[in-house]
Parts: sequence; structure tokens; C-alpha cells
Amino acid sequence: MRVKNIARTGWMMRGVPPSESETVAAHSYEVAVLALVLGGKLRSSGFAVDIEKTLKLALLHDIAESVIGDIVKAVKERIPNPRAIEVDALRELGMEEYAKLFEELELGSSAEAYLVEVCDNLATLLQAIRYVNRGYTQVLELAESVRRRLERMLTSGPLPGEALAVLRRAVSDLLISGEV
Amino acid sequence: MRVKNIARTGWMMRGVPPSESETVAAHSYEVAVLALVLGGKLRSSGFAVDIEKTLKLALLHDIAESVIGDIVKAVKERIPNPRAIEVDALRELGMEEYAKLFEELELGSSAEAYLVEVCDNLATLLQAIRYVNRGYTQVLELAESVRRRLERMLTSGPLPGEALAVLRRAVSDLLISGEV
Amino acid sequence: MRVKNIARTGWMMRGVPPSESETVAAHSYEVAVLALVLGGKLRSSGFAVDIEKTLKLALLHDIAESVIGDIVKAVKERIPNPRAIEVDALRELGMEEYAKLFEELELGSSAEAYLVEVCDNLATLLQAIRYVNRGYTQVLELAESVRRRLERMLTSGPLPGEALAVLRRAVSDLLISGEV
Amino acid sequence: MRVKNIARTGWMMRGVPPSESETVAAHSYEVAVLALVLGGKLRSSGFAVDIEKTLKLALLHDIAESVIGDIVKAVKERIPNPRAIEVDALRELGMEEYAKLFEELELGSSAEAYLVEVCDNLATLLQAIRYVNRGYTQVLELAESVRRRLERMLTSGPLPGEALAVLRRAVSDLLISGEV
Amino acid sequence: MRVKNIARTGWMMRGVPPSESETVAAHSYEVAVLALVLGGKLRSSGFAVDIEKTLKLALLHDIAESVIGDIVKAVKERIPNPRAIEVDALRELGMEEYAKLFEELELGSSAEAYLVEVCDNLATLLQAIRYVNRGYTQVLELAESVRRRLERMLTSGPLPGEALAVLRRAVSDLLISGEV
Amino acid sequence: MRVKNIARTGWMMRGVPPSESETVAAHSYEVAVLALVLGGKLRSSGFAVDIEKTLKLALLHDIAESVIGDIVKAVKERIPNPRAIEVDALRELGMEEYAKLFEELELGSSAEAYLVEVCDNLATLLQAIRYVNRGYTQVLELAESVRRRLERMLTSGPLPGEALAVLRRAVSDLLISGEV
Repeated sequence: MRVKNIARTGWMMRGVPPSESETVAAHSYEVAVLALVLGGKLRSSGFAVDIEKTLKLALLHDIAESVIGDIVKAVKERIPNPRAIEVDALRELGMEEYAKLFEELELGSSAEAYLVEVCDNLATLLQAIRYVNRGYTQVLELAESVRRRLERMLTSGPLPGEALAVLRRAVSDLLISGEV
Repeated sequence: MRVKNIARTGWMMRGVPPSESETVAAHSYEVAVLALVLGGKLRSSGFAVDIEKTLKLALLHDIAESVIGDIVKAVKERIPNPRAIEVDALRELGMEEYAKLFEELELGSSAEAYLVEVCDNLATLLQAIRYVNRGYTQVLELAESVRRRLERMLTSGPLPGEALAVLRRAVSDLLISGEV
Repeated sequence: MRVKNIARTGWMMRGVPPSESETVAAHSYEVAVLALVLGGKLRSSGFAVDIEKTLKLALLHDIAESVIGDIVKAVKERIPNPRAIEVDALRELGMEEYAKLFEELELGSSAEAYLVEVCDNLATLLQAIRYVNRGYTQVLELAESVRRRLERMLTSGPLPGEALAVLRRAVSDLLISGEV
Repeated sequence: MRVKNIARTGWMMRGVPPSESETVAAHSYEVAVLALVLGGKLRSSGFAVDIEKTLKLALLHDIAESVIGDIVKAVKERIPNPRAIEVDALRELGMEEYAKLFEELELGSSAEAYLVEVCDNLATLLQAIRYVNRGYTQVLELAESVRRRLERMLTSGPLPGEALAVLRRAVSDLLISGEV
Repeated sequence: MRVKNIARTGWMMRGVPPSESETVAAHSYEVAVLALVLGGKLRSSGFAVDIEKTLKLALLHDIAESVIGDIVKAVKERIPNPRAIEVDALRELGMEEYAKLFEELELGSSAEAYLVEVCDNLATLLQAIRYVNRGYTQVLELAESVRRRLERMLTSGPLPGEALAVLRRAVSDLLISGEV
Repeated sequence: MRVKNIARTGWMMRGVPPSESETVAAHSYEVAVLALVLGGKLRSSGFAVDIEKTLKLALLHDIAESVIGDIVKAVKERIPNPRAIEVDALRELGMEEYAKLFEELELGSSAEAYLVEVCDNLATLLQAIRYVNRGYTQVLELAESVRRRLERMLTSGPLPGEALAVLRRAVSDLLISGEV
């Protein structure tokens, strides 16, 4: 389970020592638990969410990094067909059956894929805040940019307006509580 | 998300330096992915498994350690009502609604709770093997004991015989492939 | 010497990465050196202290953690007979002869046991301050609580009033000097 | 100097914990010292080598990773114009003037670029051997593949036959001496 | 308490990563506990040992390294008056009163100083064995050399013959038990 | 290449954990890159600098620490003939031919040796600032002292006045840019 051992490049590039850098597995764990909690709130507010699919997406969303490593945005944008690389990686891991899930993640149109992307950003923001608190000032810029992205996502997405409102409140609570 | 930062006591007690010790979050991540894979195999072999419940159990099975730390067996056995401590911990984390899930885990009677317990042992065995390969010889005894427990579990459990056979084959493949 | 490798749970639970978390051995070393210094001051002020017993208590006060791990207060309080666990641990370590010392520590009535408990709290406070300075803000609450406990202990204990005054002055000097 | 903080992806993907993974800076340092030593041997055997250019190439050959991270081969091969990314990275670092050096490295035709590529492989091989000795068995395959690449390079390159012979002897000595 | 943070140079020079290198405090802790145990055995065999002095020496024997760092033998031998440096260091630490103890350690003539030197070597040997087991092969030579020094010390020292015999038996038990 | 594994004593003595302490190799890498950049600026401003010699000095200036460890100033001043120790170390490393370079470094009279000493201080200052930003307050005093030394060096040295002015501007830019 290689992702337990791969430190996220974005942190190391911003001054966080490798010995303290969040791994891909730790990040995916946080994304999954956040998805569980937020998905639960959506459900109890009456909105249908396929939690099973959400959790699968959350757990596997970065699994291709076992094979291709953690590539930063600036590089990903230069690759003509990034999905092909991820599908090849899934094949190498014997996990082709989940390739369909990945397509969903890429398109981001289903409620589940959207929810996982929200949690991916939220988890990254929470971790960035932990690092900023510890004095890794170079992380601040990233925290700000992720926060803006998250806000945009929570303003409009493939969910009914009230569902977005539920999410906004839940995310706000998490950030305020300073749960770190 | 404290569990991302808590190293598992069992490894540290057997010579693995804290800087290399698997955290509770990393372990839970591995348990969840294994549960996803094994649950998938059971399903495609025709056995009904509630994957959503399985993944929730897997992700949260050690979450109480955020509050009570990672307690070794020898001590757990001395606590009159361990479940009470875990329920209190869940309350402190604002996660009481999942207390019911925990009861299930304790009793271990449902197919889902059983599957998570199998994966909990399998994940620990895989990690123990990684440590033994690196020369942490004190881990060997634990690896052997977990292996025996896993074998016992895979011989008889709250699943039909052919379901157990599917699991045994899948676990065997994982161990042989040396996927580390 | 397992305690050289066991990171203290309290730090990890409050955000200090395992790679930076103080181990049980490092803590016990600090307790012993502080006991040496404070015991020396008591002696040169005319108060009788058995330094040999004090140092033994300081060095061994957490040795049971080699076997039972580092258990947080909230859990210790739930164990009916914690001393029994510690005695069993000592037996496993081949150190039964020191069990009597442990009883003393538990009761806390002798000047030596009291001095070790003061140093245990002082060492934890000093380490907490180091972590707070580094930005581990979750440690602040613990630092405050240990400080209050230390103050209470230094106000009344099984020592003559002037002995307590000597200790208060020495502790105050250590905290002010910012010796970190 | 970000590269002092970026752990090399290839090691982490093969089981080496981030806290123990060689950084890009440490690797570049080793490449530069090896280039210094091998370049010196070539010179004292009568072959002209521009040591200044060699050392610059060695020191900067991975500097773009400050901006783009450490990308594995499998991904690099998928990028249509990798040199463009590196040039952009150099620009971001205010180091455009060295872009010409990078072109040389890419083409690999000059004696200096060739020498740096030999040392890049040699340094990686030496580090891989250190990791294999420590029990990171997944690194073995990479060590073997780098060794073969190095042998091919030392068999034919843009240097006179006797110069290659000098290099082969020097490399052989380094590997045999077990200098780790 | 700086020594809690200073990794021992000898280990780092032999391939042990800083994140895994034993600190001066951890080493001193082990020396003190070994001195406690061996001193206890000498006493119960009827030989007079000042345990208080022994433990003070053990705890403080490397405290000067807070100020001067951990200097390897090869350099120490070149310093005309190493004791002067240590005394200055003690002064800086406000610990001049212990300077007399240090003189004793240097001369090595008292039973207590001898016992601490035995434990200093034994602790280093035990730690070296742990590192060799983990694959740090460069440590082997040091382990062998410390073992020989320990054997020489246990053959003749400022203790009666039967006292040395008690020590030899106790050391042998510790090494055989593989207590690591 | 031992220096890749030796953490710099000065950092550890000031509270930086070994797992986060800059190694001798990482430091030398930074010194070399800074020397490359500053040397380049001098050259393009019309001043003759032997870059090849500068880079060799930069890469090797601490290589003796592979054998003698990282000794702090206070101790180095006490060694009658420190250069002899370094020459012996170079011999042990099979690098005697570079001993002449080291003499130059010691005397500090050539432009190249001066430039390397400037970069040695600048690199240490940059790293100290990184640590101070992270909350290692004990490093502040060292940062201040290195800054003053650097300023003195940049005021008068074995270079023409305008060359010093070029250096002062370049160093100032580096410090202001906050390139960390």
C-alpha cells in the first residue's frame, strides 16, 4: 500500500520537512471521513447521496499516485491525456474495475464526485491550516487559494440550493471549531 | 483529525522508531481499502455485503483513539467496560450517532463487522511483514500471532462456507503477491 | 530498553508529529536530572532527602510503559487496579524488586515520591512550553493544566514549609531562565 | 532552496519512509562530488574536461524540481515537451541564464553532460545500495536497472575509448570499496 | 535540556539517519538504568557501591555535550586539556558543583566511576546491536570494538575479583537475553 | 557519502529536532549553489573569479566532517592544530590532493576562498531564518551573530570595492526576496 509512504509534494515544496509531510494515504483517510460526515448531513437533511460510491471515490481518488507519484498542478496541466496515465496506473494495481469511478471523478458531474472534490479541498485546507499554525508560512498562499476554490464550489454545484446550504454550514462549523 | 498523528503503540513497543511507525489513520486507510477490495470480491461471488456499512466501520473502528490513545490488548482486557470509554470518546468527538456501529464491531456478529475485523488483522499483518523485512525482528512474534488469528477467523465466521473460501483465496493472493 | 522508542501519547494527541514527540526515556531522563538538581538544593538548605531513592523512582517511574504503553489519564482512571498492571509489567521486565518503590510513588507520601512527582510535572511543563513555542497550540491547554497542578503541589506537600519555599524558588528560576 | 526539502519520489514509492528518503539537494550534492572526483581522474589521465561546466550541470540538473516536483520516468515520457516545463521552472527561479546548460543536459552530447549523466546514475545506484542493505527490498529492482544503464553508458559514450576505460575503473573502485 | 535533542555523532557517521539516531539523553538514560541494575547486583552480592554517586555520574557524564556537542574520539585525543572544556561547559550550565564528579569520571579509579564507564560501554554496545540488526552494517565495526573494550574492562578493574565476576555474569545475561 | 547523513550540531544544540536538522551535505549544496550565483554576478560585472576552484572549495569545505564530525566553534578554538586534523581526515577519505585547497580556505586570502566563506555564512543565515520562522527561537541569537559576521565580511575583503558592492547588492536581494 504504497500511498502510506508517499509524502505529498505540495507540502515539501513549501518548506514542510518530509518527516512531517502528510502522506497520500493520510490525506485520503481524512477525505473519506469528511465525506462520511458531510454525506451523512446531506442524507439526514433529505438529500439522496450514494454513500458507498462516495466513500469508494474518496478512498481511491489518489491511488494512482502509488504508480505515478504526486504530480503538481502545473505539470498535470501539461499532460495531454492525464486520465490515460491514471487508467494505466489502475491497471498496474489490478484495479481496472474502478476506472469507471475515476472517469466520474474527472467529470465531477455526479453529486458523489462533487462531494468528494469538496472534501478533497476541505481536507487540504485543514491540513494547510495546521501547517500555517506551526510556522510554515509558505503554505499560507496555498491555504488561501484552496479556500477560495472551496468557496466557489460551495456556491454552485450539481446539488439543490438547500443541499449546498447544508454543506456550507457544515464546512463552516468544521473550520470554526478549529478541529485540528 | 488526531488519528493522523498518533503512532500505533504496538510498533513502537517492538522497536520501530516513532518516525517510522504507522499511524492510526494510515492503518485505518489500509483497512478500508482492503475491506473495499474483499467486499467487492464477496459481492461479485454472489454474497450480499453492505459495503457502505463496512466502509464506515473500517474508517471509524479506531477513531476513539483520538481521545483515549492506542491501548494495547493487555490493558484493554483489564478495563471492565471498554465500550463505555469508546462511547464517551465518540461523544467527545461529536460522533455519537456512530456508537451503534461500534456495538456491532464489538459483537462481531454481522457479516460487515466480521469483514472489518478480518481486514483489521490483515492490514496489521501486512504492515508487520513490512517491518520484519526491514529488520525489526521483535515484530516477528506479533506477525505470527496475527497470522494465526487471521487463519482462525477465515476458517469459521458468520458467512457461508463458500464466502469464507472466497475470502481465503483473496487473502492468500494478497499475502503471496508480496504487495507491500 | 523499549522506553527509548515509545513516543508519549499526550503529545501525539495534541498535534506533535511522532518524529518530534518526546519519548518516555527522554522524559524520564529530564525528570531524573531535575530531581537531582532540586534534591541537591533541598539538601544544601538543610533538608534530608534520600537522593538514591529519588533517582531510582525518577528513572523507573514510567518503566512499566515498556509493557503497557503510555496510557492517558482518562483511561487510567477507568482501570480498577492500575497498580496491579504496573506490578505485572515490572514482573515481566524482571524488575519485581522495584515494585515496593512503585507503591511509594502511588501513595506519594514520602518526601522522595513527592519530589519525583513535582519533577514529573515540571519536566512535562518544560516540554509543553517547548512545543507551544514551536506552534503546537493544542499543547497550551495541557501546559496550563500542568502548571496549575504544579503550583498546587508546591503550595502544600509532605515537606516543611521552608523546604517548599526552596522548591518554589528553584522551580521559578528554571521556568524564568527559559532554559529549554 | 526548496530542493533541500523535497524527498525523491522513487524512494518513497519503493518503501523508504519520507523521514529517511534522500532529498533532491542531497542527491545533487553527491552527483557534484562524484563529478568532481571522476572529472579529476579524467583530467589527470590527459583528457580535457570543463570542470566548471560539469559542476554547474551537476548542481543544477534537478533544480527545476523546486517548482515542478520530482516526476517519475513513466510520467515524464508522457509529457510532449518536458524541456519547456523545465525552462519555465528556471524562469520562475530567476535562473533563465542556465537554460542553455539544460539543453546540453537533454542532448547529452558533450563530454560534460555525459559525465554528469554518468554521475547521476552512479549516485542513484550508490544510494539504492544503501537502501537495499537496510532491508528496503523493493529498491533492488531499481538498483539493478540503474546498474545496467550505467554499464551501457560506460561502454560507449562521447569520450575516447581510454577515457571510458578510466571511468570504468574509477566507478568500479567506488562500487567495490563499499564507500557508503 | 539540550541533550534530549542532540543525536550521537557516532551513529550518524555510520549511516544511521538523524531521525533514528539515539540522542545523548536517551543514551544517558540507558546508562543510568543499567548502572542502577548492575549496582544493585553488586550490592546484593555484598560489595559496597555508592549508588547515589553512581547515578549522578551516569546522568551527567555527557551533559557537557549540551554546550560542546558530541565529539568523536579521534578529535578528543587532539585536545590538550579536554577536562578544561568540560568544566567550562559545566560552568555555563550552572553545574560547577558537579565538576568534582567529572574529575572522578576522568580518572576512573573509584568503583562508581568504573561502574559508570562499564555501563557507558554496555549501553553503546546494546544500541549498536539494535542498529546492526536493522541493517546498518557500518555499525558492526564499532560494536566489535566496544565489545572488546568492555571485555577488557570486565577482566580487570578497581573492584575485587568476585565483584568483577558478578558484573561479568550480569552483563552476559543482558547480552544473551537479547533485551533490545 | 557520510555527510549526507550528519545533522549539523549547531541546529540540534538550539532545539531543532534531528529529524529536521539540516545535514552537512544539504548545507554544502546550498553553499555551492550560492557560490555559483554570486560568482556569476561577479564575473558578469567584470571581476575575475575562478568558478571551478570556488565550486570545489564549496563542495568540499566540510567534507572532513565525514571523519571528525561537526565540531562547534568553542571546541575548534581549543584545538592547537585544527588543520592537521582536517588533512588527516582528507587522507582517510583518499582526498589528499584537495588538502591544498583547504589551506586556501583556512587562510581566506584568495578571492575564491573569500567568496566561499561569504556563501558559507549566507547559507547558514538563510537556514537559521527558516528555523526562526518555524519557532525555533533559540536559533535567533545565532542568526544575529552570523548576520553581523556576514556584514563585516561584505564591508572589507580581498576584492575591489565595486566587487564588494556587487556582492552586497546580491546578498541583500537574496535576503529580501525571502527565498526560503
